[in-house]
Amino acid sequence: MGTVMKKFINSYENMISEMLNGFAKANAELVERPFERVLIRKGSPTKGKVGLVTGGGSGHKPALIGYLGKGMMDAVAVGNIFAAPGVQNCMDAIRMADGGAGVLVCIGNYSGDLMNFGMAIDMLADEGIKAEMVIVNDDVASSPVTAMENRRGVAGEIILWKVLGYLADTGADLETMKRVGDQVVFNTRSLGVAHTPCIMPSSGKPSFEIADDEMEIGVGHHGEPGIERVKMMKANEITDIIMEKVLADLPFKKGDEVSVIINGLGSTSLLELYIIYARVQELLEQHGITVYKPWVGEFFTSMEMGGFSITLTKLDETMKQGVDHPIGAIHFPN
Amino acid sequence: MGTVMKKFINSYENMISEMLNGFAKANAELVERPFERVLIRKGSPTKGKVGLVTGGGSGHKPALIGYLGKGMMDAVAVGNIFAAPGVQNCMDAIRMADGGAGVLVCIGNYSGDLMNFGMAIDMLADEGIKAEMVIVNDDVASSPVTAMENRRGVAGEIILWKVLGYLADTGADLETMKRVGDQVVFNTRSLGVAHTPCIMPSSGKPSFEIADDEMEIGVGHHGEPGIERVKMMKANEITDIIMEKVLADLPFKKGDEVSVIINGLGSTSLLELYIIYARVQELLEQHGITVYKPWVGEFFTSMEMGGFSITLTKLDETMKQGVDHPIGAIHFPN
Repeated sequence: MGTVMKKFINSYENMISEMLNGFAKANAELVERPFERVLIRKGSPTKGKVGLVTGGGSGHKPALIGYLGKGMMDAVAVGNIFAAPGVQNCMDAIRMADGGAGVLVCIGNYSGDLMNFGMAIDMLADEGIKAEMVIVNDDVASSPVTAMENRRGVAGEIILWKVLGYLADTGADLETMKRVGDQVVFNTRSLGVAHTPCIMPSSGKPSFEIADDEMEIGVGHHGEPGIERVKMMKANEITDIIMEKVLADLPFKKGDEVSVIINGLGSTSLLELYIIYARVQELLEQHGITVYKPWVGEFFTSMEMGGFSITLTKLDETMKQGVDHPIGAIHFPN
Repeated sequence: MGTVMKKFINSYENMISEMLNGFAKANAELVERPFERVLIRKGSPTKGKVGLVTGGGSGHKPALIGYLGKGMMDAVAVGNIFAAPGVQNCMDAIRMADGGAGVLVCIGNYSGDLMNFGMAIDMLADEGIKAEMVIVNDDVASSPVTAMENRRGVAGEIILWKVLGYLADTGADLETMKRVGDQVVFNTRSLGVAHTPCIMPSSGKPSFEIADDEMEIGVGHHGEPGIERVKMMKANEITDIIMEKVLADLPFKKGDEVSVIINGLGSTSLLELYIIYARVQELLEQHGITVYKPWVGEFFTSMEMGGFSITLTKLDETMKQGVDHPIGAIHFPN
């Protein structure tokens, strides 16, 4: 007892393949699986449309593959649990998304993903495929604002995909999309808190250690260390702490219109997330900031980690149109 | 240490009210909250359409309120955690859903819910509101097939709501909807397994006790005892056991077309659910049974309980049209 992993898998070696098999079968009307570790929106590429690609480690479901579909992602390269996809997978994903207008790769700021997608883009240039990258670094806990380039990407990737999906669908060119994408990333700030780690399927060990009465602010969704360990407190108290840090970071200010993502990290219930949202909206109203669109749910998890993150994006007119654009993604609401 | 509850709430007393407040604010385009414990689809009632009402205890999010919206529920009466809504709430929900063509109350087979909705229906008859009930009893673990009337309702409620939503939208009358609804319930069989309880916010105690290497087949989503306690095993092994019991119960047989719900009970990841789905589809193919529509995700939870359930419904032509009918529910995919 005590060492048995409470997960429904058959083997660590086959779990990603089996999951992708189940996903592709269950969503056969919307996706195809042209390669073992690459899934595409059915019908991708669309001629003349800039292709949208993401990729990264597994274990964050519904991210990344749940965002495939009309108005969001065209192709996803899938890595092992918390590990970058291979260069070949990155190349295949980009190729499958290229409809002749180039491809924008939108990924979180993690060294493995950057390296492998970077190599893929370089090699595909020889084939005449033009690809650019937008790197998401929305996690305010992971580095000071003076060194934003070192920050990790977390749930803020979602709003980027949503806005770029709109631009791609409405015929924007690669250069425009890269420019707007970078602006969305700059306008997006996230911070999370976790009280319970996930269990790593490779080892059966927790992704981080924490006491029975503590939580950690800013812990990454692969268990990376955060900025402060605190005692459990009331929902409104921890929400206030997180919101103070997020609001100060851009900074967000009176008159801003924002999108809000309240993201459950795995085992935190939707019931709790809506309690948190009630407080977030109250705080934003106090600051004279308008919620243009909220999303509350599990959008970017760390398997069964307990905790949540808050993502705010300051929206301009283009971004608001992106938010409103109808989509057909598998695990994101229309 | 050890006695601090790791939940994001402010107080047990206010948690449902705060959650409903957050939910109503976040989804203000789709729902209204005319009473403290009653939420309605915005615009309900629709004149001449049979109203659809559900209700029950909280802690099952996205059920029940996440199914409000076009093509699904018109009104929901909300109870405390795992507790029936009050009679007044049931009456208010039914009244708010009545567009003159009567109301169908679709609830799980739990004594408190039956009693309170039953009293509400009786009292509203005096006001001239006609309401009927469809009682969902899809959990094959909770009583032998020879005493189906004693079975609990679990995730099978969702397919009922989906089919009835279609009928209501297309002008069916109350009598027809009651008859089809009872048939959907009869055609629907579910079974779950759980390895980790949720923590009750009232007491800080787990909803059931279980060893570190065990899981329980058939445990209810309020922690009701199941039928068998087994050691943790491979995903395919436990899926095979569950499917054997579910398939034998109706029984499902060669040539049948079914909908499938793979439902995460709270902390079980979507990654695991898709591994399970891959095996379910394989088994159905072996039996000559066709999957008309699968849904994989968290649809009816028990807060952060760890485990999953499988729901099969044998579909006829009307039910298939119900499955295909476009909807605008808040937490259910279109």
